[in-house]
Amino acid sequence: MQTLTVALADRSYPIHIGAGLLSRAELIAARLPQNKVAIITNTTLAPLYLEPLSRALEARGVGVMTVLLPDGEAHKNWETLNKIFDALIENRCERRTTLLALGGGVIGDLAGFAAAVYQRGVPFVQIPTTLLAQVDSAVGGKTAINHPLGKNMIGAFYQPLAVISDTDTLATLPDRELAAGLAEVIKYGLIRDAKFFDWLEKNMNRLVAREPEALAYAIERSCSNKADIVAADERETGIRALLNYGHTFGHAIEAGLGFGNWLHGEAVSAGMVLAAKLSQRMGLLARHDVTRVIDTLSRAGLPVAAPEFGIERYRALMGHDKKVEGGRIRFVLLKRLGDAFVADNVPADALNEVLGKQSARV
Amino acid sequence: MQTLTVALADRSYPIHIGAGLLSRAELIAARLPQNKVAIITNTTLAPLYLEPLSRALEARGVGVMTVLLPDGEAHKNWETLNKIFDALIENRCERRTTLLALGGGVIGDLAGFAAAVYQRGVPFVQIPTTLLAQVDSAVGGKTAINHPLGKNMIGAFYQPLAVISDTDTLATLPDRELAAGLAEVIKYGLIRDAKFFDWLEKNMNRLVAREPEALAYAIERSCSNKADIVAADERETGIRALLNYGHTFGHAIEAGLGFGNWLHGEAVSAGMVLAAKLSQRMGLLARHDVTRVIDTLSRAGLPVAAPEFGIERYRALMGHDKKVEGGRIRFVLLKRLGDAFVADNVPADALNEVLGKQSARV
Repeated sequence: MQTLTVALADRSYPIHIGAGLLSRAELIAARLPQNKVAIITNTTLAPLYLEPLSRALEARGVGVMTVLLPDGEAHKNWETLNKIFDALIENRCERRTTLLALGGGVIGDLAGFAAAVYQRGVPFVQIPTTLLAQVDSAVGGKTAINHPLGKNMIGAFYQPLAVISDTDTLATLPDRELAAGLAEVIKYGLIRDAKFFDWLEKNMNRLVAREPEALAYAIERSCSNKADIVAADERETGIRALLNYGHTFGHAIEAGLGFGNWLHGEAVSAGMVLAAKLSQRMGLLARHDVTRVIDTLSRAGLPVAAPEFGIERYRALMGHDKKVEGGRIRFVLLKRLGDAFVADNVPADALNEVLGKQSARV
Repeated sequence: MQTLTVALADRSYPIHIGAGLLSRAELIAARLPQNKVAIITNTTLAPLYLEPLSRALEARGVGVMTVLLPDGEAHKNWETLNKIFDALIENRCERRTTLLALGGGVIGDLAGFAAAVYQRGVPFVQIPTTLLAQVDSAVGGKTAINHPLGKNMIGAFYQPLAVISDTDTLATLPDRELAAGLAEVIKYGLIRDAKFFDWLEKNMNRLVAREPEALAYAIERSCSNKADIVAADERETGIRALLNYGHTFGHAIEAGLGFGNWLHGEAVSAGMVLAAKLSQRMGLLARHDVTRVIDTLSRAGLPVAAPEFGIERYRALMGHDKKVEGGRIRFVLLKRLGDAFVADNVPADALNEVLGKQSARV
């Protein structure tokens, strides 16, 4: 087991990464303010992971209740959140009852936001079971639900007591979801860790083949990058915005296709290619580097060509993004591979050119 | 104008108290991260206060949009909250758009919670227009909505940029609402400010007659007490619980009568009498002091006899309260007038005795 720390003063917490951690109940039990937890999970994951986790906790004298939610991003909304509140209130859960988010990004976002606002905040633990959640959404305290008019529009910055990433859970992950997680892994290399990007280029085959050591290393290095950024800028007033590399385009792609058609990581992959092309168009990135980005994403099994919505529709779709400030769209661009920055002065013609031929190769 | 500070390090903020502050737009404008605000108010208050406020802001170049909500505690729920989100998203409000909560406790709780979770948090300013909100709910960062199974069950601790209490707004306040605010004013005297309680005993007639100087002094002293407590314990892990004096009983009374039949301050008044009697029954408070509590509340125009629900129903109603820990009900009791503490070892027979004859005088 590897353990990293997200350094946030009195709200610092550990990220544990390794095999077999679901049954290591002491990692959770030691942090509970009260011997009572509510496991929030979904109907797909419950048959796989609920019993080992709850049995291990109960063996340590922890009272366990379970809230079973429907599976899928379509359910990341107020109605599902309310199911959690109903169950917590009916079971008289108090301010020291700890919520355990057992699942992927949707479960983590829902359970985390429920923890942030139930009785104005109760403790919670992230137990991510997808690669995407283990390297990204479970780390850093962003929680949210979707609103009919926008993704992640309602949420909170709310840090967990701990993140417990059991790499065994990746064995059952569908290929498409593994690839979607790799998109965010590659992102860390691109925005601030050139050596990691080199490693990813060399080891992508091992990751796609799910070699446990390679996956564990990629998760650890990803979490380490994210932990650094979150510690420096918890509420995204500065450097944390770099984590949105590829996401302004990606969110537009997700919204344009209708949420749920492409996975988040798939949209981000195509979005990162657009952002790399925009960086090239701005005279920052060499054509060769854009090719390296595209090839690495391709080898991870990810889409690299964005849908052809046309310039106007892309611009409209990006207008609702949270990264808008003062009516101006801000883009995260690359100075070079491994070094990103926020640009708020992208000329319209550069953007239009990239959006207008987004399905072409460089 | 008097100005106090709630000292919370980088989230410290001023409370301004005085006449004519609604048109002092500079108090707000100076704190805005962006020249754009959304005023959240209700259909009762808008005809009275919306125009002077928005005109003053617009004269300073601030873009103003308005969200009009229905009036009343019955609307402090998810549906109304969603009306705020809809309006913010439709108007493309961004992370630096500031929400202005113009109204009483319901508006402050709704707009404050909307600010806490819209795009994971936007700035907001409290502009309370009732005595209750000016002395209590607008100060300290508690925001929430009700859940069908419990009051204030869903919310956040989220501090405003500033609190602006225009005492002119109290002139139009119905008598019952003025009295409800005085309940919380009296509470500060009872829990930690014996001299203020003495002052209140002597000056209650002036307050009921709405003498501006008396009201301004009572608001300032109340806010000063609350600011001290919030600065010491923002998230209610310790001393802040003293602010719940009378509230465990009070919430039970509100729930038992159906929310909205008694005003919150009325239920708290009867609850404070029960808590004083329980303190007497525990051998802490003299009979004479209980009489002083009852008389002062009576002279403020408040109910001092709680409804007769019977012991069992009271106990059931109190079980859902947020002040429950480990299944045990915790009560705030008085050692003497001006000195409260949290008791978690109240014997069942003492509680039963107080609940069983709650409508009798001491």
